[in-house]
Amino acid sequence: MTRGRFIAFEGGEGTGKSTQARRLAESLAARGIDAVLTREPGGTVGAEAIRSLLLSPPGEGWDAPAEALLFAAARADHVARLIRPALAAGQWVVCDRFVDSSRAYQGGAGGIGDEAVQQLHAIGSGGLRPDLTLLIEVPAEVAAERIARRDGSRTDAIGGRDADYHARVADAFRAIAGQARSVRAIDGNAPADEVHDRVLRAIEPLVEDSGR
Amino acid sequence: MTRGRFIAFEGGEGTGKSTQARRLAESLAARGIDAVLTREPGGTVGAEAIRSLLLSPPGEGWDAPAEALLFAAARADHVARLIRPALAAGQWVVCDRFVDSSRAYQGGAGGIGDEAVQQLHAIGSGGLRPDLTLLIEVPAEVAAERIARRDGSRTDAIGGRDADYHARVADAFRAIAGQARSVRAIDGNAPADEVHDRVLRAIEPLVEDSGR
Repeated sequence: MTRGRFIAFEGGEGTGKSTQARRLAESLAARGIDAVLTREPGGTVGAEAIRSLLLSPPGEGWDAPAEALLFAAARADHVARLIRPALAAGQWVVCDRFVDSSRAYQGGAGGIGDEAVQQLHAIGSGGLRPDLTLLIEVPAEVAAERIARRDGSRTDAIGGRDADYHARVADAFRAIAGQARSVRAIDGNAPADEVHDRVLRAIEPLVEDSGR
Repeated sequence: MTRGRFIAFEGGEGTGKSTQARRLAESLAARGIDAVLTREPGGTVGAEAIRSLLLSPPGEGWDAPAEALLFAAARADHVARLIRPALAAGQWVVCDRFVDSSRAYQGGAGGIGDEAVQQLHAIGSGGLRPDLTLLIEVPAEVAAERIARRDGSRTDAIGGRDADYHARVADAFRAIAGQARSVRAIDGNAPADEVHDRVLRAIEPLVEDSGR
């Protein structure tokens, strides 16, 4: 059986990546490709429990090193119990956020550095990389407006950090996209249908390679 | 103000280290030394929440990498919010388990290796080492008998692993004790009062150094 393909969506808050991840999974299914839609932090029972600790901290909030370790722990469970088995079974995996979010948030904006995040990912998840990472980018003011339109209950301990923090996240994502051919920036400042078409064009080579 | 001293108790299940940690904290207090008794995983609100995930896993149980990352996350919070501030304020810290437990359990018995555990500790807690680590050792059959006498409710996801796992833990602890002068093995196969006297003799140089 052919190994499935692993596609991750990345980006800051309000970029529309969760919507695009869902729409891609639906399009793949419509083409007869068995695709699993999942998210981080989370995706398994254990990782979802860690997600709760991260987004609603029980104490005074986590500092960047503890936060990075918790994300890496959740990812280790998710990779071992869901992502690797799905790929091995020939399924495609579409994941809303993966390790590049840790690189941008805790590594870049949080200040623990890219090397530390990569070490945690090597120890926790054998350094697994997606076949393709789609970084959805929108101007900061567009993201802020989308977030403001959301239900307030969606704000969490990380999303609720200040504009300066989120500007550092965006800078770090931009640097990551410039480093690897497997990371593609997608302009997300358009209606969802149009962004979805851009996503489909970006993943087309993977579909062709897989012989579908 | 003089920095406080940091003493960790280590050992497998049923070695009596929790009892000895408590008795040492009481003895220090009786000598006028301001000592904080704490434990791992735990010691802070955040770390105690991680402790619950570790000892009563919400999913199928953690594999060794996820478990090591969770321990390191709990330790990062504990070190940043309790241990370092206490030491800086001149308090002594007596801790029931610290990083050498991660080295013995996840590193040795769990198989992720000592280097990985040390990397996690460097990232999470700046590699903080106790001034003195007391490794309480008892023969495996004595530990097994003590555990059997305990209330069954004290068995958890880690303590409840098989004898082979716990034998690997004991081997790893022995190797750690042979490596560093700051780790002292204490024979715990004696009445608690006698073991306590051994502990007091072992920490005496620290008390003298501190000018008490």
